[in-house]
Amino acid sequence: MSAERRRRRPRQTVVEKPSGPVQPPWRLHERRFEPTPVVSEDELEAIHAASLVVLRDTGMEFLHPTAQRMWAEVGAKVDGDRVRFDPEMITELVATAPGEFVLHAPDPARHLPMGGRSVAFSSVASPPNVADRAGGRRTGNREDFRRLVMLGEVLNSIAFQGGYPVEPVDVHASVRHLVATRDLLTLTGKALHAYSLGAQRNRDCLEMVRIVRGVSNDDLEAEPSIFTVVNCNSPLRLDTPMLEGILQYSARNQAVAVTPFTLAGAMAPVTVAGAVVQQNAEALAGIAFCQLVRPGSPVIYGGFTSNVDMQSGAPAFGTPEYMQAVLLGGQLARRYGVPYRSSNVCAANAVDAQAAYESVFSLWAVVTGGAHMVMHGAGWMEGGLQACYEKMVIDADMIGMVGEFLQPLATDADSLAVEAIDEVGPGGHFFGTAHTLARFRDAFFKPMVSDWRNYETWAEAGSPTALDHAERLVGELLDAYQPPSLADDVRAELDDFTDRRIAEGGVDTDF
Amino acid sequence: MSAERRRRRPRQTVVEKPSGPVQPPWRLHERRFEPTPVVSEDELEAIHAASLVVLRDTGMEFLHPTAQRMWAEVGAKVDGDRVRFDPEMITELVATAPGEFVLHAPDPARHLPMGGRSVAFSSVASPPNVADRAGGRRTGNREDFRRLVMLGEVLNSIAFQGGYPVEPVDVHASVRHLVATRDLLTLTGKALHAYSLGAQRNRDCLEMVRIVRGVSNDDLEAEPSIFTVVNCNSPLRLDTPMLEGILQYSARNQAVAVTPFTLAGAMAPVTVAGAVVQQNAEALAGIAFCQLVRPGSPVIYGGFTSNVDMQSGAPAFGTPEYMQAVLLGGQLARRYGVPYRSSNVCAANAVDAQAAYESVFSLWAVVTGGAHMVMHGAGWMEGGLQACYEKMVIDADMIGMVGEFLQPLATDADSLAVEAIDEVGPGGHFFGTAHTLARFRDAFFKPMVSDWRNYETWAEAGSPTALDHAERLVGELLDAYQPPSLADDVRAELDDFTDRRIAEGGVDTDF
Repeated sequence: MSAERRRRRPRQTVVEKPSGPVQPPWRLHERRFEPTPVVSEDELEAIHAASLVVLRDTGMEFLHPTAQRMWAEVGAKVDGDRVRFDPEMITELVATAPGEFVLHAPDPARHLPMGGRSVAFSSVASPPNVADRAGGRRTGNREDFRRLVMLGEVLNSIAFQGGYPVEPVDVHASVRHLVATRDLLTLTGKALHAYSLGAQRNRDCLEMVRIVRGVSNDDLEAEPSIFTVVNCNSPLRLDTPMLEGILQYSARNQAVAVTPFTLAGAMAPVTVAGAVVQQNAEALAGIAFCQLVRPGSPVIYGGFTSNVDMQSGAPAFGTPEYMQAVLLGGQLARRYGVPYRSSNVCAANAVDAQAAYESVFSLWAVVTGGAHMVMHGAGWMEGGLQACYEKMVIDADMIGMVGEFLQPLATDADSLAVEAIDEVGPGGHFFGTAHTLARFRDAFFKPMVSDWRNYETWAEAGSPTALDHAERLVGELLDAYQPPSLADDVRAELDDFTDRRIAEGGVDTDF
Repeated sequence: MSAERRRRRPRQTVVEKPSGPVQPPWRLHERRFEPTPVVSEDELEAIHAASLVVLRDTGMEFLHPTAQRMWAEVGAKVDGDRVRFDPEMITELVATAPGEFVLHAPDPARHLPMGGRSVAFSSVASPPNVADRAGGRRTGNREDFRRLVMLGEVLNSIAFQGGYPVEPVDVHASVRHLVATRDLLTLTGKALHAYSLGAQRNRDCLEMVRIVRGVSNDDLEAEPSIFTVVNCNSPLRLDTPMLEGILQYSARNQAVAVTPFTLAGAMAPVTVAGAVVQQNAEALAGIAFCQLVRPGSPVIYGGFTSNVDMQSGAPAFGTPEYMQAVLLGGQLARRYGVPYRSSNVCAANAVDAQAAYESVFSLWAVVTGGAHMVMHGAGWMEGGLQACYEKMVIDADMIGMVGEFLQPLATDADSLAVEAIDEVGPGGHFFGTAHTLARFRDAFFKPMVSDWRNYETWAEAGSPTALDHAERLVGELLDAYQPPSLADDVRAELDDFTDRRIAEGGVDTDF
């Protein structure tokens, strides 16, 4: 820990605040079982080899002169924007990436291990639209952005903020990163994403995070404190802002999640294996470039392969093909020894059974597939075009259930309960036994949303659905929201910087 | 195959029939990955040992004089209804159970392997109530019973009939088994469950199944053609009808799924491990008794451990505790080398997100836990108190997705698509490539329920939810229903037997 780090003010108890719905505690999740493979080792090697053939023969476009120059210097074949790679160059560069690292959060209690057996779920990121039941669907705006950040802060199952939970379109693009990042840093203490939107914005965000973490520039580099998702412009292209993101964030030893978006049948081959060959080629090239920029800098292998409806071309999510691709991506990430990023996705337009089953199928895949960073963990709808308050609560509740499922199953002698079974004997019941009474209050996970009342009681209560409960819970959770504590001088420094940069006009745009 | 088996009439094409919604084909599912353990081998042995201590020291009640006599004859300690067992007696008897067998269906195309890597899903069984959206919730009756059997027949994802999909309460109990079993045998060709409801009913059902399978009594014994679920009256009691079921069905080499219903905190200890210790003791004692009745007769290890809401006492399903118990039950069944039965469950009162997430959590657990027979696969609501048409369609669709997820992922050179990737190159798209065009029609699984349209198109169509789609699909599927073909002489023999037994009054009841 840095000597110059400023102490965060301990959180004060605000007596007037409602405590909010009962939630599972904040906790870090660990898979206690081996990830599930979807192909054999030989098949995995065939996919790996095919990706290297793609990088050798077809190559990737790197739309950045610095990147092209750097690749040429290490012997890649650069032909205009197109770069082709010797397989060994790729594998040697990828091998320098760390297998695990810690993503540091503004609140030290929210630091996240990335890699190993850990798995962490984020709030939704980047939809252009937002919806709640009362207000309907609307274009993203700062007020909803702030409220969704607050909901993500108060929900214990959400481990980090995946980005802007909805795009605050009413803030001009020239200063949006400043306004939104200050909102994030003052509304949440959880680990943060920063968008790769060009050199100046990247520098601004790094400085703002440095201020709030209260560390020096050197400490910031020693302690990755921000991650950025670098999406490939699939197929086989990394564009200028994304490469600028790698050039800056990797250079500063921040985490880069290289994530091709390979929709099978659209921007990638129509076969799952083919789409993942392409995903893997793109991810490897991106990760290799991160390591070329700074060997040993933290990277995350991102997989985002799903399929489209071949009749309509509409993207589909949480499908069997998505599940297979998630498992396959996990096998590849483990082969390369880097942390793995996946997502909790659905294509549903309504918070209905489809939204739930597509999301739980996603959670099934990401957990058994060995994902470490699960983006869009809570609140994603419409294939990413809508952030939804009620869905965020339901997803967070489902993540809580997954977290409980991942808890160790106690098998000590007391838990085996042989004496209690003998005490009750045939035909009895366990409601009043000492063994039960000693444990019943906290014996089982208590979901927020699930309604377990019998039909008659439930019908008398007005037959509330999960959506009804989620709508109520959104309000109760937001009422219980408390901002993270920021020392006055930290807040002042953040405001000084942000206000100055806003006054300067932020970043030039052509609109 | 028996020489005297009568040929089933080939199904005739009925031109007027609508083909119904596009469904996945009938297929047998295989897990291609190892099941997921939830405890270590040492912990598993501790649970196994604890169950044997329960059987040795506390024992089980066997409420049947024949069973008590048989246990006494082999040296168990019989004290009134209570029977206590040497651990070795239990393990030696259980060891004679087969690891795999085939459950024969009336339609030979619907025979089911039980054991190994197979997994098969049934329709819902035994709720007292039935609901659909238009008609609301009502007491079970023969008309709904018949329509749910038909829906289970037409849905390809449903591999077998788990029992009465709803209890036909309007048929008097004295003849209900005759009426209902004839309905089943004339409405579906899928493998069947028979209830253990006393000696005469068991004999009637066996004879009716024998008639429809067109086999001799010897063949029926060589080819298990029916299964019965033997529920323990937990804790630690097997009642008279259930033991009668083992005495008759095991004696005839039919399949017995011994299934304790161990609700942690109610009829079992409040800890998951303790509840499973009790489940395991009860299952082992039941399986051992099957083997005592007929060594080598087919059995299934049934697990049904869930938890209750400790505030209200209401049972909960599809919970994290349920998932852990399902995985643990699978480990135990594999330890004993017998097929494993689990269930697709939920506690929801409405076909909403809760119904979906509790069911997919269940499916996650049963598939990764290595279940072979998944009861209540489609249509279960309200913790088993309601059979629901729309839920049956949604569940069947989800099972179809699980089945697709379990399909092998093709990794041949064509599927890896290296040439297609090269052909498209950076920045292109795959919609029109030869590789895509050759595959797009059948490239991906097509769910029946999922609505993948974009928001605007979907809203213009009236914003249909999954429940809306399921309601429509119920009608379309029932319209496409076709009965299994039965040879005229088989049908006549079935009717002769059934009508005679009904005329005789069926089975005496005291009401």
